[in-house]
Amino acid sequence: MLKENTLNTSNTSSPATPSAHYDLIIIGTGSGNSIPTPEYDDVSIAIIEEGTFGGTCLNVGCIPTKMYVYAADVALAAREAGRLGLDAQVNSVDWDSIVDRVFTNRIDRIAQGGEAYRRGDETPNITVYDQHARFVGPKTIEVGGEVITGDQIVIAAGSRPTIPPVYRNSGVKFYTNEDVMRMPTQPKSLIIVGGGYIAMEFAHVFDGLGTKVTIVNRSEKLLRFLDEDLVTRFNAIARERFDIRIGNGTLLEQTENGVKLTLDNGETVEADAILVATGRTPNGDLMDVDTAGIEMHEDGRIKVDEYGRTTAEGVWALGDVSSPYMLKHVANAETRAISHNLLHHDDLRPMPHEHVPSAIFTHPQIATVGMTEAQAREAGYDVTVKVQNYGDVAYGWAMEDHTGIVKLIAERTTGKLLGAHYFGPQASTLIQQMITVMTYDLDLRDFARNQYWIHPALAEVTENAILSLEFA
Amino acid sequence: MLKENTLNTSNTSSPATPSAHYDLIIIGTGSGNSIPTPEYDDVSIAIIEEGTFGGTCLNVGCIPTKMYVYAADVALAAREAGRLGLDAQVNSVDWDSIVDRVFTNRIDRIAQGGEAYRRGDETPNITVYDQHARFVGPKTIEVGGEVITGDQIVIAAGSRPTIPPVYRNSGVKFYTNEDVMRMPTQPKSLIIVGGGYIAMEFAHVFDGLGTKVTIVNRSEKLLRFLDEDLVTRFNAIARERFDIRIGNGTLLEQTENGVKLTLDNGETVEADAILVATGRTPNGDLMDVDTAGIEMHEDGRIKVDEYGRTTAEGVWALGDVSSPYMLKHVANAETRAISHNLLHHDDLRPMPHEHVPSAIFTHPQIATVGMTEAQAREAGYDVTVKVQNYGDVAYGWAMEDHTGIVKLIAERTTGKLLGAHYFGPQASTLIQQMITVMTYDLDLRDFARNQYWIHPALAEVTENAILSLEFA
Repeated sequence: MLKENTLNTSNTSSPATPSAHYDLIIIGTGSGNSIPTPEYDDVSIAIIEEGTFGGTCLNVGCIPTKMYVYAADVALAAREAGRLGLDAQVNSVDWDSIVDRVFTNRIDRIAQGGEAYRRGDETPNITVYDQHARFVGPKTIEVGGEVITGDQIVIAAGSRPTIPPVYRNSGVKFYTNEDVMRMPTQPKSLIIVGGGYIAMEFAHVFDGLGTKVTIVNRSEKLLRFLDEDLVTRFNAIARERFDIRIGNGTLLEQTENGVKLTLDNGETVEADAILVATGRTPNGDLMDVDTAGIEMHEDGRIKVDEYGRTTAEGVWALGDVSSPYMLKHVANAETRAISHNLLHHDDLRPMPHEHVPSAIFTHPQIATVGMTEAQAREAGYDVTVKVQNYGDVAYGWAMEDHTGIVKLIAERTTGKLLGAHYFGPQASTLIQQMITVMTYDLDLRDFARNQYWIHPALAEVTENAILSLEFA
Repeated sequence: MLKENTLNTSNTSSPATPSAHYDLIIIGTGSGNSIPTPEYDDVSIAIIEEGTFGGTCLNVGCIPTKMYVYAADVALAAREAGRLGLDAQVNSVDWDSIVDRVFTNRIDRIAQGGEAYRRGDETPNITVYDQHARFVGPKTIEVGGEVITGDQIVIAAGSRPTIPPVYRNSGVKFYTNEDVMRMPTQPKSLIIVGGGYIAMEFAHVFDGLGTKVTIVNRSEKLLRFLDEDLVTRFNAIARERFDIRIGNGTLLEQTENGVKLTLDNGETVEADAILVATGRTPNGDLMDVDTAGIEMHEDGRIKVDEYGRTTAEGVWALGDVSSPYMLKHVANAETRAISHNLLHHDDLRPMPHEHVPSAIFTHPQIATVGMTEAQAREAGYDVTVKVQNYGDVAYGWAMEDHTGIVKLIAERTTGKLLGAHYFGPQASTLIQQMITVMTYDLDLRDFARNQYWIHPALAEVTENAILSLEFA
């Protein structure tokens, strides 16, 4: 019987006495749930998930946020259609139907289906635990009062919203990315605390859908980690669109109809609700990992080597809990490496961390891969840089786009692409070709002329940017 | 004096006596106007343009059509926003403002500026003629009553709408792509004759902007030259959206408020106006080219070799008048080759005709490069094929897309991409990466896993399609 490799069939075992032993224990069902490929059919596995099956990306992250973002994109496009000669308007937003469409009819079914599948007969080698896991010794985990052991363990426990004490200790209801998309009604006004990508995506979503958004950020610049040219342009647009307050919240209070936030500069902001989006904290600190000899970085990530091995033999980690990149596509790639490595100790595959792109689904959309101009110069490259306006190519005329740019940074002497930064419609699509360029180290000196570019398609913005780079 | 290499300063010269001789005569200012690079500053050039400077693409083709298409895209998105939980509507379309934005404020200025530049002091080596050109002997052209000769001549005279006699001889006003975008008012109803890409783009434009569109096409299938999977899907959507009549027009009559078209099947259609979009005819037949020893293909194109040379020494041709591809990006590439070849007879560059993509800016948008599945099988390839739904990737969920596909055709034994066909949002952007794959002959067997794909960006539809191909 594969389903439970029960060492002790009694449920009265003390925490110190393992009740079951597995070939493999996986903590977390975001990327972790993708580890068991068909190659694992004869491996006894425990999967531990204290939250919802599917993890952050599926349930409260990448996927549902983009579903809200797209609705906001369309609403905004309709409201701004006057510049195209259209008199269009958004009469109302049916928040309930959006929640239903995204969660009830799509996400929740996938999450429930994923759990049912793992608990069902199709994966008889897998046992599901649905409580919090913590280490109580080497390769030994306590979960829901039971102690289980594993020959190998993968920590894929993800991350959680970082909540500064002002909010955490306020006693006032605040939202995070984990519940803001399921608010009972769409707020008429919303305070968003933070200036990173989560804060900015939700600012776009709620403003796009008609909520008055006030952003509270501790520093002057939103999305400040981007290339400076994008930062400048994004912040100019954001200032037009949102009420932005610079400062730290010092007091969050309940009001009759909502909340009131006082800032350290003395300003106060009131709104129907507040969303705290001030970053994410890896979950390794909640698992007593030191008990198992698993070391952590100072920033809270579990230490892993290039193959995903922690400092404890037989224990691996991947995704937000350990990765330098809190990105689902990176977690997926790490998962594929570790899924292989667990079964092939003599043929370890490194976790791929080269040419990692990312996108921010704000308006304008942003996508980036490689170095910023500042990083490239700092690294000593002899660079050639082009900032190409969307508005200078024919499809940009069609869109009446006046803010979009692509910025390319290349090495003058070799034609090597060092960084690509898109800021405008379809940014996350356009960049994929530049990821290919980096992956295959294609020489930009003849790249534009070696191939056709459909006229007048939007990719001409890339073509023109490349043609404007000046090589030695 | 470079401006006019006048042989005979009198204007009374008979047509047989050349009044001027040039190093180079260029007929047509679409792509032709791009031939004179700085390398030509000391070359005496005559440029002949009987129509509007800038040619078809700028004035009546690719560029303005996409500006109308994009407005139609946004109008359609607003009207269909209900599926996203938005109650949006288009109250009205300001046709005049669209015409002004596209033509008065953009296209016409570029065309006028282009002509003024060529006539001005900045290109003293270039003389502009604005009448119809026809050959009266080898390297000898009659234009507006003058006869001029050139050491070299480039025929870049483009193409014109093909008008079947039923319409041409009707005495009734019909529109073509050349004037339909400048109609004095937006018609409430429009008959569109044709089933090719011009007809279908305008069908989308006018329907999107609120005109009732009736399509009259001689064959059952619209866009029938596409891969069969795209043809099937496009026609299913078109049948929902347009009133489609299969047949040939036999009689076009004026009515009190518009036009009435009788078909050979006895049906009649009435509308405010009619657009004839039944193809394009190369303009070589209007120029007495045989007089100059220039041969033509039976299909009306001027014969050229791979370097753009016609059968007459010193005479070249490019673009719609001679090319196997009536596409602006091909004409541009041919122009670059010929611009070089004219000055470097001992180092001729071939006109690039490999991996030529094209896009149709309908709704859904279509983009294609390489072979259809039928062509690949016909050519004897051992193929692997994947039809990937947009609706199976997360960004497709966000868009609530239920019709988009990418179809990839590859060689099973080598991983070579033979054809890529996109049908859905951003098709013309997504395909650019596959053009790169073909250009660099990148092996699809490891292409998807070699690089990152942003999650959840739309390019995942390409990633998933590639991962589903089955290689030997």
